[in-house]
Amino acid sequence: MKAAERQTAEGILFTDQYQLTMAQLYFRMGLHERQVQFDHFFRDYPDYGAHQAGYCINAGLAWLLDWMQEARFRDQDIALLEGQKSRNGGPLFAADFLDWLRSNGTFDAITLHAIPEGRVVHPNVPLTVVQGPLAVAQILETPLLNQLNFQTLIATKAARVHESARGRLLLEFGLRRGHGRGANEGARAALIGGADFTSNVGLSHVMGLPPKGTHAHSMVQVFLALGMSELDAFRAYADVYPDDCLLLVDTVDTLESGIPNAIRVFQELRRKGHEPVGVRLDSGDLAYLSVQVARMLDEAGFPKTAIVLSNNLDELVIWQIMTQIAQEAPRVGLEADHVIDRLVFGVGTRLITSWGEPALGGVYKLVAVCEKGEWRPAIKVSESPEKTPNPGHKHVWRIYDARGKATADLLSLQEEDPRQMSHIILRHPTDHTKYRTLEREQVSQIEPLLVPVLEEGMLVCELPTLEAIRAQRREDVQRLDPGVRRLMNPHIYHVSLTQRLWDLKQSMISELTQGREGLPAPPAG
Amino acid sequence: MKAAERQTAEGILFTDQYQLTMAQLYFRMGLHERQVQFDHFFRDYPDYGAHQAGYCINAGLAWLLDWMQEARFRDQDIALLEGQKSRNGGPLFAADFLDWLRSNGTFDAITLHAIPEGRVVHPNVPLTVVQGPLAVAQILETPLLNQLNFQTLIATKAARVHESARGRLLLEFGLRRGHGRGANEGARAALIGGADFTSNVGLSHVMGLPPKGTHAHSMVQVFLALGMSELDAFRAYADVYPDDCLLLVDTVDTLESGIPNAIRVFQELRRKGHEPVGVRLDSGDLAYLSVQVARMLDEAGFPKTAIVLSNNLDELVIWQIMTQIAQEAPRVGLEADHVIDRLVFGVGTRLITSWGEPALGGVYKLVAVCEKGEWRPAIKVSESPEKTPNPGHKHVWRIYDARGKATADLLSLQEEDPRQMSHIILRHPTDHTKYRTLEREQVSQIEPLLVPVLEEGMLVCELPTLEAIRAQRREDVQRLDPGVRRLMNPHIYHVSLTQRLWDLKQSMISELTQGREGLPAPPAG
Repeated sequence: MKAAERQTAEGILFTDQYQLTMAQLYFRMGLHERQVQFDHFFRDYPDYGAHQAGYCINAGLAWLLDWMQEARFRDQDIALLEGQKSRNGGPLFAADFLDWLRSNGTFDAITLHAIPEGRVVHPNVPLTVVQGPLAVAQILETPLLNQLNFQTLIATKAARVHESARGRLLLEFGLRRGHGRGANEGARAALIGGADFTSNVGLSHVMGLPPKGTHAHSMVQVFLALGMSELDAFRAYADVYPDDCLLLVDTVDTLESGIPNAIRVFQELRRKGHEPVGVRLDSGDLAYLSVQVARMLDEAGFPKTAIVLSNNLDELVIWQIMTQIAQEAPRVGLEADHVIDRLVFGVGTRLITSWGEPALGGVYKLVAVCEKGEWRPAIKVSESPEKTPNPGHKHVWRIYDARGKATADLLSLQEEDPRQMSHIILRHPTDHTKYRTLEREQVSQIEPLLVPVLEEGMLVCELPTLEAIRAQRREDVQRLDPGVRRLMNPHIYHVSLTQRLWDLKQSMISELTQGREGLPAPPAG
Repeated sequence: MKAAERQTAEGILFTDQYQLTMAQLYFRMGLHERQVQFDHFFRDYPDYGAHQAGYCINAGLAWLLDWMQEARFRDQDIALLEGQKSRNGGPLFAADFLDWLRSNGTFDAITLHAIPEGRVVHPNVPLTVVQGPLAVAQILETPLLNQLNFQTLIATKAARVHESARGRLLLEFGLRRGHGRGANEGARAALIGGADFTSNVGLSHVMGLPPKGTHAHSMVQVFLALGMSELDAFRAYADVYPDDCLLLVDTVDTLESGIPNAIRVFQELRRKGHEPVGVRLDSGDLAYLSVQVARMLDEAGFPKTAIVLSNNLDELVIWQIMTQIAQEAPRVGLEADHVIDRLVFGVGTRLITSWGEPALGGVYKLVAVCEKGEWRPAIKVSESPEKTPNPGHKHVWRIYDARGKATADLLSLQEEDPRQMSHIILRHPTDHTKYRTLEREQVSQIEPLLVPVLEEGMLVCELPTLEAIRAQRREDVQRLDPGVRRLMNPHIYHVSLTQRLWDLKQSMISELTQGREGLPAPPAG
């Protein structure tokens, strides 16, 4: 895509056609500037097949805001829309509507509340609340979902990989397997969710981090093709990078060639006063090789040299490697932790694509419409009750139990504040038989999660730095129950409604479905 | 990401750190301008779990070329690299290397051959052949793989969905679930592989196609929230778009509300001289509903009105819907084809993410190095023989049998031309016991697949239009054996080596592994 085309494809036309046809309809009816509220939320945690998430890490907001600030209908965009034809041969979009878009088609009138990036989030909780003129709030749906769905997906996956890596350094290596330019959004989200660094050079600089990486198999191959050896390649690398010497040891044969050659070069380095950094293993049985390599490096006097592992890693593979090392290390006389503590994980394809579940089903649903200055809750009744959104303006509260662990997220009406309640009734969002009551002394903290971000297009909060986002993520994950943090079959975290929100939802559902009773039930679908 | 940051993250630094550290090493050794050849290929078809691809559709080249033409080390990029630190506190990249990058860090010296976009391609066949100075050819690896892996992945998925949709109109709806800006690359690839149109407005305009879409549930909800009805919403839509009236009928209840209301509006439209376009179903049992909706539309006098289906479709779901309609339509007195012929498929998440296999494992391997004007083949011997790349300069030929169907892709040495051979020996790439011999009369055509694209950075071919790319794809798929086109358990298409290439590969492997015999076998990994 050429630069000029990128401006078209990544600007305000980075949206779905139906947003524009609906906008014109609203314009025609005089509804285009009607204030409305859309809630953005997801309905289910990622399910990777053999394993499932019990929480997500919210991400993507800052880059969405950057996009919103720049996106507007340029003359070129308007000209493209002018060229779109109806089936009757005339223009699809009328001149007066396009004029309105040209003057008003920005996000300067949007008010936005959001749960900050890096926070642990759960299904059916509004993560982003958009209020604004109907036409532009509608156009925003697609780009908002694009950014927030994907970054939350990848931050969540990164948190899982980080969890299974048990604090070892985690490097994001996925640029070559990411989905086009989306690899940048993915790398950012990985850094939020649990990756310490990325190999992606440009993105690292944008995020203020040093990129990570040393050399590939091809370097050794070049030397071999020119009649030199793996040892020559390693020596050359050590010469150029004496204090940053991390060698990929599996181009020829890890244990027979790579490690012996690396040790020789490391010894030469040390004699010259430099300490080697490590070796990388990119093929074979990584657990077995890690133990053998640790033993060989120990015996050669390099007990602290890092062992970087890569090659189709994900949370389960890392978990398995750790488990196998714990079993095998003692057999060769090593403490397992001595091997594990020096591991570094480079995770590519399976992190950047969220292998197993490559999309988060985040949605953007109309929940309120302003009429004569009054907000009226809106609802869509779905055949499956769990797909019926919670209507109206809402607050989101996180409730911590006596241990300080998060025990539930509670959605309330805007005017409710559970901090003022003597006891809190938590209603299941769809099952009327399920609720629990928390007495005040069972609760250590009640925290509002949504913060004001934009007020009529103006930024009204300070956006946190990457470090602050990561600190928030670490704290939130710490405050989860261990059962919720499990990689497989996690406990189900409670997302509940207050009694009054429950009552509102039920009354709206029965109003909407009145007169539909007695009809034959639709087939299951 | 802000505009200035995008220039950093999407320009020449859209690469992996190790490409730059290797480039500096080559620079230091005087090898940076050494001519080398890298082959880009993939090793396995996508395997979606329950079903597998038997062919891929090549895609991504044109946008890679656009990127290569614009990418260069700007002063800002050099400044960022200058700021990168070694562990010893000094700069990681030296001034002389950065000077060289500033002056020579472009792709103006790259020569590139490629199999054109839209062509059917198979594993282990060089799709893109890069020749040029070692340092820049190495930097190119990451962005090349990023573009070509992803677009080929999505074009392949689109071809499968197109296949199962049996010629029905196919719309790409995935922007909200695509991976950030990669959704644009994905939409382009979908249009190459089998989607007719996309809902992505900007990308449609870049590709010269009209975007597709009408309205969402939210439009009906707005009307309901304002005290109006679904019928009011449909009427309003028909008023604004009398000749483009396609109504989403499942916001309230498809059969009880949506379709009766749509029919009323369609009748009103027709009385005013307009023909309605169709209805869209986005929930429930789409096969059952399609049959019922077709019957209701028929009875109301709209036997040609389109029925658009969406909601988590992919090639298997569409296949199942088609199968179920074939069984159920006759029970309500309809011909199955009468229902199927009016279907249109809108495919979102599962196309844009290549659900089931969200990455193609394309690689970029050094296969030759120029020394004293002579090309020397390079090889990396892997523990698994199928991962050992085919060395050296090669030609790629497609061989068609007497029926005109493609029967094998043949890799030969550069100086070989199978069109001159009286009979052709096709060697299995790794198994020395497997080969077959084709006599000239068994062969209807032998076609070279690689075409020259860049000669020292200059474009030396005319890049095909989207229409030409699609025509090529249709022709190539037509010329596949039906067994290879199957959605599940496809026949394995043969990718073979000539006898001479086989001999070269074997001699290089044994040269490299000499002296390694007798060593204990490494553990399986």
